[in-house]
Parts: sequence; C-alpha cells; structure tokens
Amino acid sequence: MLNGIGREIPEYLDGYGRCKPYPSSETGTGGPGLAGCNEKGSHHGEKYRTDLKVLLDEIGIENGMTLSFHHHLRNGDHVMNVVLDAVEAMGATDIRVAASSVFPVHTSLARLIERGVVTQVRANYISGPVADLISSGKMKYPAVMYTHGGRARAIESGDLKIDVAFIAAPLCDKAGNISGADGPAACGTLGYAIPDAQYAKRVIAITDTLVSYPTPMTEISEMFVDYVLEIGCIGDPAGIVSGTTQITRDPIGLKIASLAADVIGHSGLLKEGMSFQTGAGGVSLAVAHFVSEKMKAGGIRGSFASGGITGYLVDMFEEGLFESLLDVQCFDHKAVRSFRDNREHQAMCASRYGNPHNKGCVVNQLDIMILGATEIDLDFNVNVTTGSDGRIMGGSGGHSDTAYGSKLAIVVTQLVKGRLPIVRERITTVTTPGESVDVLVTERGIAVNPNRPELKVLLEDAGLPVVDIRRLYEKACSLTGYPKDLETEAEIVAVVEYRDGSVIDVVRKV
Amino acid sequence: MLNGIGREIPEYLDGYGRCKPYPSSETGTGGPGLAGCNEKGSHHGEKYRTDLKVLLDEIGIENGMTLSFHHHLRNGDHVMNVVLDAVEAMGATDIRVAASSVFPVHTSLARLIERGVVTQVRANYISGPVADLISSGKMKYPAVMYTHGGRARAIESGDLKIDVAFIAAPLCDKAGNISGADGPAACGTLGYAIPDAQYAKRVIAITDTLVSYPTPMTEISEMFVDYVLEIGCIGDPAGIVSGTTQITRDPIGLKIASLAADVIGHSGLLKEGMSFQTGAGGVSLAVAHFVSEKMKAGGIRGSFASGGITGYLVDMFEEGLFESLLDVQCFDHKAVRSFRDNREHQAMCASRYGNPHNKGCVVNQLDIMILGATEIDLDFNVNVTTGSDGRIMGGSGGHSDTAYGSKLAIVVTQLVKGRLPIVRERITTVTTPGESVDVLVTERGIAVNPNRPELKVLLEDAGLPVVDIRRLYEKACSLTGYPKDLETEAEIVAVVEYRDGSVIDVVRKV
Repeated sequence: MLNGIGREIPEYLDGYGRCKPYPSSETGTGGPGLAGCNEKGSHHGEKYRTDLKVLLDEIGIENGMTLSFHHHLRNGDHVMNVVLDAVEAMGATDIRVAASSVFPVHTSLARLIERGVVTQVRANYISGPVADLISSGKMKYPAVMYTHGGRARAIESGDLKIDVAFIAAPLCDKAGNISGADGPAACGTLGYAIPDAQYAKRVIAITDTLVSYPTPMTEISEMFVDYVLEIGCIGDPAGIVSGTTQITRDPIGLKIASLAADVIGHSGLLKEGMSFQTGAGGVSLAVAHFVSEKMKAGGIRGSFASGGITGYLVDMFEEGLFESLLDVQCFDHKAVRSFRDNREHQAMCASRYGNPHNKGCVVNQLDIMILGATEIDLDFNVNVTTGSDGRIMGGSGGHSDTAYGSKLAIVVTQLVKGRLPIVRERITTVTTPGESVDVLVTERGIAVNPNRPELKVLLEDAGLPVVDIRRLYEKACSLTGYPKDLETEAEIVAVVEYRDGSVIDVVRKV
Repeated sequence: MLNGIGREIPEYLDGYGRCKPYPSSETGTGGPGLAGCNEKGSHHGEKYRTDLKVLLDEIGIENGMTLSFHHHLRNGDHVMNVVLDAVEAMGATDIRVAASSVFPVHTSLARLIERGVVTQVRANYISGPVADLISSGKMKYPAVMYTHGGRARAIESGDLKIDVAFIAAPLCDKAGNISGADGPAACGTLGYAIPDAQYAKRVIAITDTLVSYPTPMTEISEMFVDYVLEIGCIGDPAGIVSGTTQITRDPIGLKIASLAADVIGHSGLLKEGMSFQTGAGGVSLAVAHFVSEKMKAGGIRGSFASGGITGYLVDMFEEGLFESLLDVQCFDHKAVRSFRDNREHQAMCASRYGNPHNKGCVVNQLDIMILGATEIDLDFNVNVTTGSDGRIMGGSGGHSDTAYGSKLAIVVTQLVKGRLPIVRERITTVTTPGESVDVLVTERGIAVNPNRPELKVLLEDAGLPVVDIRRLYEKACSLTGYPKDLETEAEIVAVVEYRDGSVIDVVRKV
C-alpha cells in the first residue's frame, strides 16, 4: 500500500507486524500514553488557565472522584482549601481526598467532611480538625492511613487511583515544569508530589509564580502536567516552613538525647561512611547535636543524612559531616536554601525514599534512625497515629519505612508524658511493628529489642543503663498508676496500612 | 480476625475493601511493582556483581529476548560489545537488540548479526558495519528505526518491550544510582537511557567507577536498577566525546550558514526569549555562530538551547545568550563539564525531549531548529536515513521530533555533494515528512515550504534570495545531470517509524 506521503509500505511484515501508515490518526495529536501511568495529553495544547471553576468544569469533576494533594506547603497550604471550596460550589459529592498529609490549616476539608461532600480521606499523616472529625465518626468511609513509602507504592501499583492531582507549584512555567526551589511559597524538594504527577489521570499545577520556560531547577516535568492554573497565592510562608527548628532545652529531653547518642556510639555504626536520619522534634535534634559532637571528636565523615531535612542536618552537611543530603521534604528555610544552592543536597521522590516494592529505596541504606512515639508496648510496637485518648493526631509518615529499612531504629521518648505512661502493655494503635524497632531510650533507661541480643551485649558492655522493657513499664506505672483500657466504639474510622498495603491496625470511633 | 501482631481487624470494610492482614507474604520482600513499569525488585537484595557471565546465567538470557543499550558513550562504547560477546558465549539465539543508536565501534553486534545470533536491531541511528549488514539483507528480521522521541514513546506505550536493559554507568554506587557527570567515561546527561531504566523488566547498571552511596548527581535512581556489574572499562573517552566540535571553514558552508542566520533574523523569531537548537555538524555550528552574533548585536537574551549540547552552545549559554540548556546528550567535553558544574544546564530524558504522546515535550517549545539532509525532495521530505546509494548511514535521531515541534525548521545543505544533487524529485528514503520542514537553505538560494506563505513574504521583503524548490532541483541537475533511479531489491531490510509509531517509509536491500 501507499502511505499518506506516497511511499510504498507493506501492510504486514514478518518480525515487525502490522504497519500503521503515516500519517495516522495519532500523528502528533496524542496516542497511547505512558503504560500504566497517566493518560496522554494533547499536542501543543494550551495548558495555561486562570479560572479554577472554569478549569474544573472543563476537566469535569464527577461524583466519586479521587483528588490528590501534596503537603509540602504544610500548615501554610492554601491550595487544598481553594480547590475544595470550588469543588463544593460545583455541587460534586462523594469526593475522596488523597493528600500526602493533612494539617490544621485544612479547614475546608473539615467542612466538606461534615457536609458529606468528602466521604473519604487517605493520607500519611492527619492532624487538626480533620483528624478530630474522623475520630468522631463524622466521615462516611474509613480514612486510610499510609506510610510515606506505602502511599508511593499504592499509587504506583494502582491500589490508589487518582483522578485529578492538584500540585501546588512554587515556581511553574506555562508548559507545566514545576520547581519548589524558589518563589514566595518556596518549599524546596517536592518528593511527595512526584508519584501523583506520574500516575494521576489528570494533573493540574497550581502556581502563584509563573516563570518563563523552562522553569529553573525543574523537579516535575511538563511531560506529566495537563494544566497550569495561576492563582494569587498558593501558601503562607510562615506556615510552610518553621523559622528555625530548635534543639530541646528540657533537661530530661537532653538526657534522653545524650543516652541515644551513647547507644549510637557503642552500636558499632558510628563510623566513616555512616548514614543518619532524624525528625524535626526537639529531642531528635538534640540527638543529632550529640551525634555531631561524637563525629567531630572521632574525625568521622558520614555518607548521607536523609528524610525530611532540617537546618540542623544542613549545618552538619556544610560542616562536612555528611557528603550529601537525600531530601524528600524541606522542614525549614535553611533546608530550602541549601537545596537551592547545593547540588549534593539531592532531591528524592517518595518512592525512592521508602517504597518497599520498587527495586531499592533509600531507607534500606540507612544506618541510624531516630524515631518518636506516643506509646510503645512491651513488644516494641509503636503508636504515632493516635493519642492515648484514641483520637487521631498524626500518622506514620516515614516512621514505619525508616524503622524497617535502618540498621538501628531508636525510639526516644520520656517515660511519662502528661501523667500518662508511654510504655504500655497494650497500645491504642499500632503504627510501626515492634520487630523493626531496635532500641527504646528513656530518661529511666534503655530497653533493647530481644531480637537484637548482640546489640544488648554491646550496650551493656559499654556500661549503659540497659533494662528490660517491662521494668520501664512497671516504673512508668509506679509513677502514674496503671492506665485504664481505652473505651472505643465498634465503628472503625480509619484503617492503618503498613507500607506494603497490609492492615496493621484500625482506629475506632471515640 | 486478628492480624499477625494480635490486632483485631475486619476481613472486609465498606469503602475500603478486603483487608490484607499484617504481616503479609509481601511484607518488605517485594510485591506488585510499578504498574506498567519495570518488575518489582527484592528487598535488601545484594545487587553488586563482578562477573558478567555469572550474572547473565543468574537472570537467564533466553532466546528471543530483547536487550537494550544506550548510546551516550557513542563510538567509545565498550558495553554493548562486552555484553553481546557474553550472550553469544551462552549460546543464546534470536536476540533482539534495542539500542538508542549503533556506531562503528559495535563490531560484536555486526558479528552476531552475521552469525544469526542477533536477528533484529531497533535503533534511532545506525552507522558503521551494522548498517552495512542490514542494508545487505544479512539480518533475519527488518531493522526498526525510531526517532529519539518515538523510541521513548514505544517503550512507554509497550510497543517496545525490553527484557533486559544494560546501562553503561560512568558513576554508580552498589545500590544502582547512576550518574554520567564524572568518571573516566563521563558522558554528562543520560537522557536516552531513562525510559529503558523505567520500563525494562530487568535493569543492569554496568560501571567501571564504583562510588560510595549515594552517587553524586544521581540521574537514574536505584529504584529502577536490579543489578550493578563492575567491569574494568566501560568506554574509551576518545570515542565518547569529540575533542572540540568545529565550525566549518569551507566558504560554501559559511555562506549557507550566514544565509540561514539571515532567515532566522527576518523570521520574526530572533527576539527576547527565543529558543534554539542545532546539531554538531560544521555548518550547523556556523549557523549558531552567526545567530550568536546577531543576538549580541541586538542585545537579545534567549530562553533556552536544547538537544544534544555542544561546547558552542555552552559558550553561548555562558555568555548569557541563553538562560538555560536542556540537554538530552552531551556532545563534547565542554558540554560534560558544563552539565557537571552549572545547575541551569538541566538534563532531560528522551520522553521529555521528544515523545509526541506524553503531556508535552521540549521540542514543542522550540522556536528555531537547524537540520541537515542527505536528500530533500520537492515536497520538502527529508532523508537522513540512507545515502543516495540506498545504504543505511544514520537515521532520524531527533530530526523528525524537532522538525515537528519547532516553529521554524531550517534544513541547511549544499545543493550538490559528491557530484550528486541533494534536492531531488524523489528521495531514497523519507525520514522526516516535508510538512514539518519550513525552509531549505542552500548556497544557491532559499526555498520556503508552500505551507508557510507568510514566511516566504517576510524573507522576500528582506531581500533574501528566495526561489522555488523546483528551481534549486533544476539547478542542481544542471550541474550533475539528472540522477538515475536507485535500483533496490524487493526485500525490506528496515522499517522507518515516524515518531508516533506509524510507518513513514521502508528501506530495501541494496
């Protein structure tokens, strides 16, 4: 046959198959898109929009859709509220919200749950009024609480199908190249938004800072973005990043941190090439401080620090204590600046950070991880999902991912908080299984998981105050009295998924 | 029911579905992988290997498999030869080789084609003995010749399924993080290898420079890599990058380049924010030189230059003539250094560069593209696949992608080469359809595609020597005589795919 420009081609060719003649209906105008990924876009289509409601009409928001958001603007995020207000105005219902995290600022989400417009929330961390509403049984379907790596896994595997991803974009060009490195709402890396961009059926970048093509330091490419919406303000810098994350000044907190650093010092892992991660809490940062002193004293240079990155880790990096930073989320202004200015402050996506089902993630390379706990039981199972009153106040985030991957996962906590024992016979909710927690450090002593007998010997030989976890439990209860069993109703308000998608626990209505 | 750590969970939950109890068989040990992407890896599995044959036995190379390679080491590549030698030694047969390009250095591929071990080659560009063998009908199945964007499309859509991708890695850590930024075989960006890494069933990084985790300036992440093989040498720097790409000194070439720059100058596109791409040929670089002079004279600052990046474009970038470089492949040492040292020398993957079926690619943002031709017909259809003797000597590479996407696609060529006319009534092979070519510039005049009448007026008004393309054809034939029709056999030795996967032409045995 002759194709459209008069060249003779066969209809079928052995070793090739059927020949589709040029020009085809798909020439340059879209065709089969990324297999298993997001749907095809249209060629040369103008992506730029300025009216959210018109855009939502254009893409068609239907009842039952799943809308996704990232949490890099944290408690300064305007985007989720703005979008959900418009979704409500359209009269849509039975909306599922898949946000990487939910914060107190997300009052529109709370309102839409109360009004029955949003019937499910899926997130890695939930705090504020949305958490309270879920705990009170006000949402139609149970919330699903992921780990950071588990959410990436769910999106990539198709367990979590996103209809429309709304991506807050601190910098964006009209073709949809997104960066968080600069702009009034600069948040640094955009690690949690990347699976959404890659796998959502439709992707909308929402920016307040349109830049000329191509966006400097592009983190999410135009190849994944259908529309670019410009609005006045995507977020409040004061809520996006805390000013300076602070080391605790509490003497008990400092004692715990010092003990934790001693555990690290005697674990055999404080050595050249070590890797380290800690959260942004005051005690965790104090651990980083004491570890930093030990590294300097020993002339030790680590390989990387990872996770959500704080200014304190940036300081260690800039002092040469780590060769690089692997950053899924910047916690403060210093981290944002460092990411913008230093190339070995490398971004990583959520899947590379912690997805257990890809070909290898960063947590698997981690030596030392410092973790918090609201409760821990005698099997070292940890709760960071609910308070002891049973109400949702957080979630795993990277807790389970890093506990699993790291060689030494240390939980640091006071033995008693608010007149309640932290060590318990039975905890309210299991977030992270005890089998991946190695050590508990409290101001009253250090408990080592029985599955790490060699570590226990090392710490005992070093003269550290190693005790059985049951002794810590008894000690705590001697101070507070034995805690009463929490009364919950039968109704399940949230499912706690482990990183692989299995159900590690459920949260019931209180 | 109780899950594995004694928590009571339901078997089924409305709004959630069936609950998979923790721990599941998939906990931390792999499970459903990336949907449509590469298969799952295994947790904490040791990826590092030192013996290629043992590794090939381990993964199991079976008859009929498709093995892929990238061409960033160009004519200095050792990896394809080393791998294919081992594949032959294993006794495998009916192997398909999907390389982004094939060069004269690939003598093992030629030998395996002759011996019938390799039965098909799929590539964007083929030169050297492999091209000769294909043209002579020595390969069992027809070659498939893609465009750079079309290959990314084929991989992402599943049209091209890769069993094992072998990725030459100038720098790599034991977890599989790959960078081309440094090392003895530094090649800069790795844009053409990225679809292979994302979609091949198995991915092997092959390196001669193992670095500590994490690899600096990681371009391909561990999450896609199954194995890391260390060998002595992956490539010869002398063949990887040319020393310095040179502007032509030929007066005819300079005249053509100067005319092409005049076309640009009067096209309305030489202005603030302009974008520009050119290949590494001597005339193309001379166009860049004259454009650069016009930009400086006019105080014009462009937005980006793109494509395979040469030192000449780096110079323009460093002089402030472009705000950024979008680089899919570094052509010389200066480009490699610039990529390593300058953050706004941004890498792009092949899909972002030219895939017509994603949500937007860089070529669609391109103003001006300078293209070559071995032949061009009266409809402006261009051949860069075969010589006038009908033998394969190249391929589209990014030719069709950039011609389609750019606002002004200019073909620059001498009217006569080697006593053969370049403008022809009928060309040997159509690589790029004439409808996406805007202007032909020769030393004897400028022909404008009739589908761009407004451009013709602009150039005529500027006093440029605009002529009908048929006049150029007659002129050429008056110098060379009318070319005889090429005699080919009926046997089809290669299928030329347009970027959307339709067949634009076939190549027959000579």
